[in-house]
Amino acid sequence: MIDCGAPQHHRTADMEIDPSTIARLKSTVGQKGFSEDANVIAPHLVEWRSKYQGHTPLLLQPGTRAEVSSILRICNETLTPIVPQGGNTGLVGGQIPLEGEILLSLERMRAIRKIDAADMSATVEAGVVLSQLQGAAEDAGIYFPLSLASEGSCTIGGNLSTNAGGVNVLRYGSTRSLVLGLEVVLADGRVLDLLRNLHKDNTGYDLKQLFIGAEGTLGVITAATLKLFPKTVIRETVFVAVRNPADAIKLLTRMQEATGGLLSAFELIPRIGLEFVLAHIARTSDPLASPSPWYVLVEAASAAPINLKEPLEAALAQSIADGLVTDAAVANTEAQRAALWRLRESLSEAQKFEGASIKHDVSVPIAKIPEFLDRGIKAVAARVPGVRPVPFGHLGDGNIHFNFSVPKGASDSAFLARWTEISRAVHDLVHEFGGSISAEHGLGIMKRDEIRRYKSAEEIDIMRALKRTFDPNNILNPGKVVTVE
Amino acid sequence: MIDCGAPQHHRTADMEIDPSTIARLKSTVGQKGFSEDANVIAPHLVEWRSKYQGHTPLLLQPGTRAEVSSILRICNETLTPIVPQGGNTGLVGGQIPLEGEILLSLERMRAIRKIDAADMSATVEAGVVLSQLQGAAEDAGIYFPLSLASEGSCTIGGNLSTNAGGVNVLRYGSTRSLVLGLEVVLADGRVLDLLRNLHKDNTGYDLKQLFIGAEGTLGVITAATLKLFPKTVIRETVFVAVRNPADAIKLLTRMQEATGGLLSAFELIPRIGLEFVLAHIARTSDPLASPSPWYVLVEAASAAPINLKEPLEAALAQSIADGLVTDAAVANTEAQRAALWRLRESLSEAQKFEGASIKHDVSVPIAKIPEFLDRGIKAVAARVPGVRPVPFGHLGDGNIHFNFSVPKGASDSAFLARWTEISRAVHDLVHEFGGSISAEHGLGIMKRDEIRRYKSAEEIDIMRALKRTFDPNNILNPGKVVTVE
Repeated sequence: MIDCGAPQHHRTADMEIDPSTIARLKSTVGQKGFSEDANVIAPHLVEWRSKYQGHTPLLLQPGTRAEVSSILRICNETLTPIVPQGGNTGLVGGQIPLEGEILLSLERMRAIRKIDAADMSATVEAGVVLSQLQGAAEDAGIYFPLSLASEGSCTIGGNLSTNAGGVNVLRYGSTRSLVLGLEVVLADGRVLDLLRNLHKDNTGYDLKQLFIGAEGTLGVITAATLKLFPKTVIRETVFVAVRNPADAIKLLTRMQEATGGLLSAFELIPRIGLEFVLAHIARTSDPLASPSPWYVLVEAASAAPINLKEPLEAALAQSIADGLVTDAAVANTEAQRAALWRLRESLSEAQKFEGASIKHDVSVPIAKIPEFLDRGIKAVAARVPGVRPVPFGHLGDGNIHFNFSVPKGASDSAFLARWTEISRAVHDLVHEFGGSISAEHGLGIMKRDEIRRYKSAEEIDIMRALKRTFDPNNILNPGKVVTVE
Repeated sequence: MIDCGAPQHHRTADMEIDPSTIARLKSTVGQKGFSEDANVIAPHLVEWRSKYQGHTPLLLQPGTRAEVSSILRICNETLTPIVPQGGNTGLVGGQIPLEGEILLSLERMRAIRKIDAADMSATVEAGVVLSQLQGAAEDAGIYFPLSLASEGSCTIGGNLSTNAGGVNVLRYGSTRSLVLGLEVVLADGRVLDLLRNLHKDNTGYDLKQLFIGAEGTLGVITAATLKLFPKTVIRETVFVAVRNPADAIKLLTRMQEATGGLLSAFELIPRIGLEFVLAHIARTSDPLASPSPWYVLVEAASAAPINLKEPLEAALAQSIADGLVTDAAVANTEAQRAALWRLRESLSEAQKFEGASIKHDVSVPIAKIPEFLDRGIKAVAARVPGVRPVPFGHLGDGNIHFNFSVPKGASDSAFLARWTEISRAVHDLVHEFGGSISAEHGLGIMKRDEIRRYKSAEEIDIMRALKRTFDPNNILNPGKVVTVE
């Protein structure tokens, strides 16, 4: 794998799980609800980039909230550690039983309990695959906006536990902003039923917020009530050449004004990224006549049949007249739109053909992106002369995939050996800019210790206090997100 | 006051605050930062409906975060209770020192630290008055959408601490959804700096969520970074007659589809409410030729100069053709728009002319509103024959002002004497429908005990556990939201 130079987790001494506990857990869920078969368990133990390999004596696959409750009650009584898992698509090791913990897969809890077009909400169990919910909403004539590369296998429970991002954040926010209600089993097996379907409720602390993005360390999410939206019927897509990221940000403001905040994508692409795509990916071509150092893929969308094309093109014409935009290609057909998106979506793939790369998933305040890119590129280039920066991504969210390809002709392994050093320099700079070293993916095990360098002592203390309050015996995904020792 | 029949708070034994503690607190903030003058303090001690009257030996008005930190450190060390207060516009007594606690007003912390049009964000201190932030955003050519009746005096700190709602929730969500970052002083005086300006950050528990809507019981908010939006340039307003609330909800779905989710208001009005307004409020007239049992005031808004009128009117014409809508008046001028809004905004005022009323601020899932209204009206009418139900409000948010006017010719005081009985019946029904007994206003002291009837033991337990974790000495607004004894 190209990013095998990233930090690896090293196993420490395993937990000893008492055979009588294993027997109790098995009898709680019945024959359908567990496996000890190594072949069945194996795909659950490795994360898809093969960075983390776990092991477990027992895979539990409960079918009901009551079974999850019984499982946690037993684990809590017997101090047995347990790792919840959704679709096993996480990238930071959060879902892997690294120390031989019991593995709790929610995949059998996959009922779509209710899709309600009048309430514009859906109540679904944790094991529902994201694409199934998307499809069910579509069948009801409405729209669930969460959309990720792994949507065919990731589950709603995992999306909630990692506060998943994806391609629609600019318009609809991250997963957190889509949640109306939550059903959670607490560490001691009690069920916290927060499955409300209310847009307004100010009756005390908003407890559901704590479990969203907590990676299963404070409780196990078993179901959720989620917001649905009207279906998109109009999309306008433009590929725009700009001189630099600062002009791209000015264009973002202008385009949001022109569309009244209806932008659904605003993706930054550097020339080198486009060149990689044109060189290595079939059926791609440069949409513009002459090269530009930077591009933005802009998309605006509406769920109503309104004329978005006119204001968008007027703003574009004005931007060209002002010199903010140097050239632009408007998609006039769905095929043209797909061709523009193909350029953006092939960036990661194309980078592979150019040798090893060191990647970061970071965010900074949007206005600071130009300075961050400038200083970040210089900092890495000073360490690795000839390194090829390929920063791209969700400019509209302040979220940049800050990637670097190995210098031309240099050794992949020598470059990857410097991952930790390079990442440290990048993360330190992200911190200096008030940014996040994990914009989308969470902490899991990968960034659990790294984050202590950047969060204040107060914040780490409060995180630990919460972990102790919700999981005093440290049985829920122990060692992930925050340590309590 | 018309709603003096609501539950009152009765003082218990006061805290004894040591004079040496008072002296330390005074010296911490200096001459400008406190008052012991009864005339200065008086307006801070009474809630504007005169339902709650507090008292305090000392009003503190710190000017900096550091001073707030010192104050809380002293209070925590000396076990001195303290009540934070913003603009003193809360309706549930949360901001009143009922037991003689120290009063901590944040009103001197009123710096707008930054308005950033590129980031579309503002960083402001807790004491900034909402209308000042609205104005500052407007001066920068952008828009802060939070808008309430009390916006001329309520503060951002109070808005955050109560998760304020208001008139733009349908489009922009409650205060919580406008928050990017928070600065909080913890009970022991430590500062938790979560003042991030990031749209994506998945690095552990989202601690800021805990303090939003916590009514100052878990920490004192001293500043926040808030989202800004493009300014609204198009508004389309229609006054629509429907046969019943069920048809109103069908119309909501249809109008959201027609505008692509650009509705900014969808307000239910009953015929009796309109009649009260026409009878008692000057310069009002019925926009439609013949009476209808129910109406909806519909508004769609866009920050871009797009044609919203056409899809809205097409949907309206279709709805009339289908029989879903029986009549409609479209506002063609700003004056016509103002006249329609005057009908909606005068409902509370007009109700006063019809004698006493018993009011509830409740929410239920939107699709259940028709059945809730039907059963709720029957339940109250069974208890008070001849009672005049005037339910109105934010149908699009599922939030109904479930108000009842005294039967014609009956005694106000006899009617108001039944407030607790009527409210109990209404709240029980709200609970049966999975609703909230405080959609907008919080718990404070008014609903602290009432909510225990409706929340599960698990939820109350977790709320208490959080209170103990964040405020182990119970000094922060003790007795509000949740008790820990």
